[in-house]
Amino acid sequence: MKNRIAIVGYGNLGRGVECAIKQNSDMELYGVFTRRAPESLNTLTGAKVFHVDDILNHKDNIDTVIICGGSATDLPVQTPALAEHFNVIDSFDTHAKIPEHFNNVDIAAKKSGKVAMISVGWDPGMFSLNRLYAQAILSDGKDYTFWGKGVSQGHSDAVRRIEGVLDARQYTIPVASAVEAVRNGENPELTVRQKHTRECFVVAAQGADKAKIENEIKTMPNYFADYDTTVHFISAEEMARDHSGIPHGGSVIRSGKTGLNGENTHIIEYSLKLDSNPEFTASVLVAFARAALRMSKEGMSGCKTVFDVAPAYLSAMSGEELRKNIL
Amino acid sequence: MKNRIAIVGYGNLGRGVECAIKQNSDMELYGVFTRRAPESLNTLTGAKVFHVDDILNHKDNIDTVIICGGSATDLPVQTPALAEHFNVIDSFDTHAKIPEHFNNVDIAAKKSGKVAMISVGWDPGMFSLNRLYAQAILSDGKDYTFWGKGVSQGHSDAVRRIEGVLDARQYTIPVASAVEAVRNGENPELTVRQKHTRECFVVAAQGADKAKIENEIKTMPNYFADYDTTVHFISAEEMARDHSGIPHGGSVIRSGKTGLNGENTHIIEYSLKLDSNPEFTASVLVAFARAALRMSKEGMSGCKTVFDVAPAYLSAMSGEELRKNIL
Repeated sequence: MKNRIAIVGYGNLGRGVECAIKQNSDMELYGVFTRRAPESLNTLTGAKVFHVDDILNHKDNIDTVIICGGSATDLPVQTPALAEHFNVIDSFDTHAKIPEHFNNVDIAAKKSGKVAMISVGWDPGMFSLNRLYAQAILSDGKDYTFWGKGVSQGHSDAVRRIEGVLDARQYTIPVASAVEAVRNGENPELTVRQKHTRECFVVAAQGADKAKIENEIKTMPNYFADYDTTVHFISAEEMARDHSGIPHGGSVIRSGKTGLNGENTHIIEYSLKLDSNPEFTASVLVAFARAALRMSKEGMSGCKTVFDVAPAYLSAMSGEELRKNIL
Repeated sequence: MKNRIAIVGYGNLGRGVECAIKQNSDMELYGVFTRRAPESLNTLTGAKVFHVDDILNHKDNIDTVIICGGSATDLPVQTPALAEHFNVIDSFDTHAKIPEHFNNVDIAAKKSGKVAMISVGWDPGMFSLNRLYAQAILSDGKDYTFWGKGVSQGHSDAVRRIEGVLDARQYTIPVASAVEAVRNGENPELTVRQKHTRECFVVAAQGADKAKIENEIKTMPNYFADYDTTVHFISAEEMARDHSGIPHGGSVIRSGKTGLNGENTHIIEYSLKLDSNPEFTASVLVAFARAALRMSKEGMSGCKTVFDVAPAYLSAMSGEELRKNIL
């Protein structure tokens, strides 16, 4: 019996989930649910498309809903609403608002008796898991998260809103010497500026004041002012040729001490190098969708995060196969 | 209420557990249980020492027993026997015999209603977890485990058994070009020889035939014959000065493809660089001891592996704190 998945929201992440489901033989895509006119939407794999307002009519055909909306306005509404009827997964990534989102979703999922997993992806998600494991093991230590090299969608959007900018791509880049110091167990104190640099590629409108654009970027509060930022002006052709991917990645590194007097140092590092940020996030979502359905079948309910999922639930292998083959 | 731990077996691993307990304020060492005469043993922290035959007399004072014996002959007997009375953790690491060990321990722990965790450490253990997570996420991919640079106790012992050898230390070293090829997503097919080399430091007896010793090492079946091995003869002083540590480490790397036609590649890497193999293993054991007691209090029982432990159980933080601080 396959795990019948519904996708809500069909942007980059939704398309990534569509592709990831194809790679897992115990999964089946029931359909894509969208706010757009369903007939206007062509799916990559020819999956059926429905209007999201009709989703309750399909309740008996769906085991788990993967919600692929945005964290700013979609997920705070969609996840609690859908958790009242379905097992759901989202990738809510506004770290500061996770406790509030958890509580709202938990109330809905406890009422329905469903499993609702939030903040699944790589950060929050796999990076969070690695922070937890590393902290639990090396209790006397310090950990660091570095992001990149990768495209930050939020920062790219911020640059695009500047007058005279036609298109922009922003890369977040970890400072190599900082990463090395952490890997060497030096436990450095690092400012925001010392951890990451930002690099922007900008297509300016004809006649735009490039010096003014560059200054506006570099002094933008929250987004760029606290970083060393470089700005490159390029043509629309160069943008399309060299910057159409959505790569990302990064590392979680913890160094800690053990021994009677802390005489031994240990370094734990978890690193990702991703060609496609949304496709990787989608692959994490699909693995946790497998877990959600299993946990639901075992009678669990309520809001869960990656911290609450015993790893065995993620694998298509049985416990016996896992112990034999990969333990 | 602290988690009262008993240590069974007081070698390098037992001493590591003793030190790790000191680093965790929710843990308390009740005592060390040994097969030796208790009065002959001085513990690092002044912990009480008892004879292991008396452990049942201390049943009401112990929440969890961390069994620090060897996998060859100790753990197959000790873990099932102790699981009949206590929550237990071991670091059983004979991969091929894990299913058998699991079954024996499971019967005992189900009978007693206790939680018994086996094969906790870094491989098996954290490396196994990372194989599982990475496989579940990137279902179309291939993973590799590299060990080292680090001391292999078994290989060092094998060299020590050769006639004319007074002392020996063997390092397992991953082949840098193989690791690079894997990190680049090339998914190479690698033979045993192409993945690791072996380096031996040997103190020979006066007048011993060094050429013969070197040849015996390099041609030893299972241990060295399938590897490129280098042998260095050194003095006892050099051995004590340069090779008294027990460092280890390694990497689990998975590369996999996503997208409609596998057009995007992703690399997941988990790496450890450990000054002290036994102290790190001990730190993992203590974190899972916390989980075992919690799971036991929630009414779970039977044999568990790292795959069965929801990560939140490992942390001293509450679910709420975890979501707020590290998700």
